[in-house]
Amino acid sequence: MIRAGIIGATGYAGGELVRILMGHKDVEIKWYGSRSYIDKKYYEVYQNMFQIVEDVCRDDNLEELAEQVDVIFTATPQGFLAGLLTEELLQKVKIVDLSADYRIKDVSVYEKWYKIEHKSPQFIQEAVYGLCEINRKQISDKTRLIANPGCYTTCSILTAYPLVKEGLIEPDTLIVDAKSGTSGAGRGAKVPNLFCEVNENIKAYGVASHRHTPEIEEQLGYAAG
Amino acid sequence: MIRAGIIGATGYAGGELVRILMGHKDVEIKWYGSRSYIDKKYYEVYQNMFQIVEDVCRDDNLEELAEQVDVIFTATPQGFLAGLLTEELLQKVKIVDLSADYRIKDVSVYEKWYKIEHKSPQFIQEAVYGLCEINRKQISDKTRLIANPGCYTTCSILTAYPLVKEGLIEPDTLIVDAKSGTSGAGRGAKVPNLFCEVNENIKAYGVASHRHTPEIEEQLGYAAG
Amino acid sequence: MIRAGIIGATGYAGGELVRILMGHKDVEIKWYGSRSYIDKKYYEVYQNMFQIVEDVCRDDNLEELAEQVDVIFTATPQGFLAGLLTEELLQKVKIVDLSADYRIKDVSVYEKWYKIEHKSPQFIQEAVYGLCEINRKQISDKTRLIANPGCYTTCSILTAYPLVKEGLIEPDTLIVDAKSGTSGAGRGAKVPNLFCEVNENIKAYGVASHRHTPEIEEQLGYAAG
Amino acid sequence: MIRAGIIGATGYAGGELVRILMGHKDVEIKWYGSRSYIDKKYYEVYQNMFQIVEDVCRDDNLEELAEQVDVIFTATPQGFLAGLLTEELLQKVKIVDLSADYRIKDVSVYEKWYKIEHKSPQFIQEAVYGLCEINRKQISDKTRLIANPGCYTTCSILTAYPLVKEGLIEPDTLIVDAKSGTSGAGRGAKVPNLFCEVNENIKAYGVASHRHTPEIEEQLGYAAG
Repeated sequence: MIRAGIIGATGYAGGELVRILMGHKDVEIKWYGSRSYIDKKYYEVYQNMFQIVEDVCRDDNLEELAEQVDVIFTATPQGFLAGLLTEELLQKVKIVDLSADYRIKDVSVYEKWYKIEHKSPQFIQEAVYGLCEINRKQISDKTRLIANPGCYTTCSILTAYPLVKEGLIEPDTLIVDAKSGTSGAGRGAKVPNLFCEVNENIKAYGVASHRHTPEIEEQLGYAAG
Repeated sequence: MIRAGIIGATGYAGGELVRILMGHKDVEIKWYGSRSYIDKKYYEVYQNMFQIVEDVCRDDNLEELAEQVDVIFTATPQGFLAGLLTEELLQKVKIVDLSADYRIKDVSVYEKWYKIEHKSPQFIQEAVYGLCEINRKQISDKTRLIANPGCYTTCSILTAYPLVKEGLIEPDTLIVDAKSGTSGAGRGAKVPNLFCEVNENIKAYGVASHRHTPEIEEQLGYAAG
Repeated sequence: MIRAGIIGATGYAGGELVRILMGHKDVEIKWYGSRSYIDKKYYEVYQNMFQIVEDVCRDDNLEELAEQVDVIFTATPQGFLAGLLTEELLQKVKIVDLSADYRIKDVSVYEKWYKIEHKSPQFIQEAVYGLCEINRKQISDKTRLIANPGCYTTCSILTAYPLVKEGLIEPDTLIVDAKSGTSGAGRGAKVPNLFCEVNENIKAYGVASHRHTPEIEEQLGYAAG
Repeated sequence: MIRAGIIGATGYAGGELVRILMGHKDVEIKWYGSRSYIDKKYYEVYQNMFQIVEDVCRDDNLEELAEQVDVIFTATPQGFLAGLLTEELLQKVKIVDLSADYRIKDVSVYEKWYKIEHKSPQFIQEAVYGLCEINRKQISDKTRLIANPGCYTTCSILTAYPLVKEGLIEPDTLIVDAKSGTSGAGRGAKVPNLFCEVNENIKAYGVASHRHTPEIEEQLGYAAG
């Protein structure tokens, strides 16, 4: 069995990850990390897990976690993993990061778009961009760090990649108009994400400046060569 | 023109009240009270009011407000009006309270169900229960204080009243199963009210113990005589 | 009182028109035309009109209707009005057409996009495009025929018009990405419009070929001069 | 591998059944029956099955189907299976019926509630009520005919069964107030099921007379003894 630990297990991405991993016959979730619900039963946060997950939520101690699992998933805000990642850690466990910390090869681009300093850029080159439909070959049992793509990037790249690859479109004429569900805004208690504000509504945001842009451009750049 | 002031104008009840009063040809809203958005333009909170409402949000100073309007609507949490209401105030303005403070004649029942002390019970007897379909006659230009009914109470009483009045049902066999939209939970930023938690979902709450119960019982009691 | 008659009063556009006209103090709806519900009470189709509208649904006899009202609204499929419109009719009543029959000045463009022959093109020049934010001056008490704009056209033109008018954008660089609610697909019983097919879903259609395109181009053409 | 055939594979129940069976490692779907879409690719009806299900939709020839599979699921209207079921068929395949045809032991009760004649009542006694949480022991590899419970029956029985079984409630005081999503109304193109009619709406129906009542009463009757 592959022992997995999740940091950010009660967010929407983390919760979906739990659901998927529980359906994987070779994976066992050993650690439900959730800073907001430490010591609370996981099923108290997601009641559909009642009598399915008995674990309590844990903190985000990567050192301790690394001793107990084979792989760590970080479903965390930008900068979290970059702030804690060390060579020691990578020698003990494999890490799949769902944040943007290791998706962009050019650290200055990352820092410009996310407006935070990258605390451990030395691992960026090693990270494999985990879009398996395209990078499956680069993802092997030797891979230590996987940068999982974001929502818009996944749909945009998978859609445009073949067209760009085959030279069927001019990459610089590409306009991506993508819609995301509200879960994309996370599980934070914010008025704009309340049902009554969101329901039957659609809102333009990040127009011409969404931070997934460089990620899409970089990947499609490889396709274009 | 009837000059109106609203305390709690940016909540869902207050926002709907604004919308309705703006359609009333004899009413002019003079005061958009909102503790959370003081000095912010009202249309910045509800952007559909852009170029329709130019006012900024004000505080909830009832004394000052009473000097400027003919009627005050309090779309506020339980206990707010009871904590500030005075004879002086009632001599200056009429008040329509959308909270439960003056809906229940028996103060001990109010305090039991809402678990707060009633700060000005001396006005309870004077208050008229503002369900105009039933109490229209009691609501005159002499009425100083109107206790506006709640959501469940309105639909429950209007539905059951004629049946009880005509003796067509045994009041004590009545079971009310009512559903409320999420706006009923207010505009507070709480995780349970997020779109992703609420959408396509329905939740039982207040089963056999919803605090609108005494209000419904009292009004139907009058119907039964 | 302005006496109004509606053909297609039980469709979504017609139903909304009824709701709006009922709020107009100078208008009285004299004729609820609905081929699908002839002789049925209007409120049986829209139950929120119970005890508000007592009329039964009528057929779409324009001749008879013209004798009884001052204005006829046709909330009907493309080609309906064009197939029945006559000079005699226009001498008796004013007509506001919610279909596309008289929106496009070039009949060949209309026939190309809507794939139907235009049966009374002789009235196209007379028709005024009823986007009052832009054409208010052209709409007078002498206007006999108003071609009401469609959904996408209204939002697209109102958004782009000032930019084009002021020469702030190159009209031929304009890309309109608009979303419509399902009501835009009408009230026909079709599987793709069922709640379970539509809910939480979004679908691309009419990409680069939506039939509102010529209408938008024509109006923005006037803006560009 | 268990070879399965589905009659009514393009309805909502059938579509969900396909989804579930495809996740079952020992099951292979051999026959996608759909009278409405004969010879059409299944993925053309449910596009999420593109490149996952290559089969075309077949008719509902039970005889032919019985030669090719081990189990037949009938996700069909009431009366369909009862009209075709024969001893020969049951000797060749096991049948799981998602309709009500074999759920109720008393054929007169079935005919009263569903207002149709039961064409093959001789198999009713043999049928096992497939609510596995309660009847798991009765469902063996010898079972030939399983009557799968309906939506309301499942949630109602699973909720009330333990209470009735343990004598914690008087069965005849039980009031079931259940809500169903619109998929429960099936995939027929009917105006009342259109998104614009259903969305943000809730409707009372089958009050005190829903046809799942006898099914619930029968099963809870066993619990009460």
